Amino acid sequence: MSVRSPIRIVEVGPRDGLQNERTILPTEVKVAFVNALSKTGLSEIEVSSFVSPTWVPQLADAEDVFKRIERAPGLIYSALVPNEPGLERALAVGVAKIAVFTAASETFNKKNTNATIAESLERFRPVVARAKTQSLPVRGYVSTAFYCPYEGKIQPERVKPVAQALLDLGVDELSLADTIGKATPRDLRALLETVLLFAPQDKLALHLHDTYGLAIANALVAWEEYGICAFDASAGGLGGCPYASGASGNLATEDLVYALQASGAQVAVKPENVVAATKILASYVKRSSESRLGRVLQPSA
Amino acid sequence: MSVRSPIRIVEVGPRDGLQNERTILPTEVKVAFVNALSKTGLSEIEVSSFVSPTWVPQLADAEDVFKRIERAPGLIYSALVPNEPGLERALAVGVAKIAVFTAASETFNKKNTNATIAESLERFRPVVARAKTQSLPVRGYVSTAFYCPYEGKIQPERVKPVAQALLDLGVDELSLADTIGKATPRDLRALLETVLLFAPQDKLALHLHDTYGLAIANALVAWEEYGICAFDASAGGLGGCPYASGASGNLATEDLVYALQASGAQVAVKPENVVAATKILASYVKRSSESRLGRVLQPSA
Repeated sequence: MSVRSPIRIVEVGPRDGLQNERTILPTEVKVAFVNALSKTGLSEIEVSSFVSPTWVPQLADAEDVFKRIERAPGLIYSALVPNEPGLERALAVGVAKIAVFTAASETFNKKNTNATIAESLERFRPVVARAKTQSLPVRGYVSTAFYCPYEGKIQPERVKPVAQALLDLGVDELSLADTIGKATPRDLRALLETVLLFAPQDKLALHLHDTYGLAIANALVAWEEYGICAFDASAGGLGGCPYASGASGNLATEDLVYALQASGAQVAVKPENVVAATKILASYVKRSSESRLGRVLQPSA
Repeated sequence: MSVRSPIRIVEVGPRDGLQNERTILPTEVKVAFVNALSKTGLSEIEVSSFVSPTWVPQLADAEDVFKRIERAPGLIYSALVPNEPGLERALAVGVAKIAVFTAASETFNKKNTNATIAESLERFRPVVARAKTQSLPVRGYVSTAFYCPYEGKIQPERVKPVAQALLDLGVDELSLADTIGKATPRDLRALLETVLLFAPQDKLALHLHDTYGLAIANALVAWEEYGICAFDASAGGLGGCPYASGASGNLATEDLVYALQASGAQVAVKPENVVAATKILASYVKRSSESRLGRVLQPSA
């Protein structure tokens, strides 16, 4: 095996995870959670989202969370930003990196953001431009990059124009998301073969969901076969898939880290510390741990 | 991709699964479970074990279960057999295939069977010979083929003599088991590269555990890269790993089938029917479903 770059884990539990949990957590619990995650070796934590509190009440305290967390040196604390007002709010509290969110499926994008993909991209243009004047790196999510809950299979050719448009706007990183967890290694290879023709490998991240148990298989293929070194994951598998009630959603950070480390990848994260960080949420998120490692380390039986 | 043989799923839930559950199920529940599994498209069901009831009280009713199940045409109903008395009990109730069980780790074999590996193999010699006179196919389990809970990593060179000895005794199939679920695709490749030098591909089955979430990744690598077409699995992930209390153990049949079918493999099993079959056990096995698909189809939240 050739020498590989270290793995970069983008922890999305505090944002993508908590956004999809029913309970709204107290600000101090979120702060404690982010602070605990800061001590696990993660590269980046997506802390919150500067969307309208009307749409996502779970993250209405984004400013407060950012003001109160203790920022560890070298760790990037990022946030989702839907538009220019959101960016100004983010800038006011010193967000270090922003993410914009669109999809490869027109129906999904419309239902999620009330805009066409083209409209979303136009909305991002001034956001990315302003972020650049502030030297903020920008990530662009491409949701439903494999399957859409409304449209079914999304061919790589439909991901291409969205990904290309985001790169043209100036995003520094693309996160290709398997929103409903249906991607197989075959689907993954097909998408990466297409995207790697125009996007550099080191600008690609994968956002995998483990709804059907395929996420680890996909992550290992992406790393072993394509050298992809950036992966999103959610501590404790936080964030059930909203399209399949009760199903597991996000890939658990600790399971991803375990699998990559066991496979020989260089990952600075200590998975047992991630499991420990999720304990902070135990009395608020009323579900058994969605992670395999969580069960090994904290047997409930 | 080249044309592949159809996948053969060996359902081990009624034996390996129930053996590792704390509750002892009533015979009629086991019979109903096997009968329901018979309608899912499985190739083979390992129904019970003819070991001493003192050692495995969970399966003390092996004869009764075999007498009462309805056998579907073409489906193989097999059983684990530890020795000659066990084989005679199995023959008396018309078992169609037997399995013998040893390990690649000396410590594990000693603790599990109170015999050295060499002693186990000697014990199997007359069992396999007698099975052959009855035209019964024989499977040989090689447990701890990747990692041992006592000895740690087991190198492929240590699996080789055990696997070779079983083939020399005349077993028709080897099931290489990842007993504690620690194998990565890298470990799997290393073992298969060694074993395929002396064992034909169509005599190999994999018995994967999902303790750390790696089982699906391994199954897909085995099938895609090595053409392995026989896999053990346990409906509903029955059978927690006894070496990590509360952890998931056996790979859930429905998740394996889903992943293989989604990846393009030919699998006759209907995964939703496997999930339905596990409902029969719901009031006896007091754990949430260990399968991803089980949660998608039967949301608990």
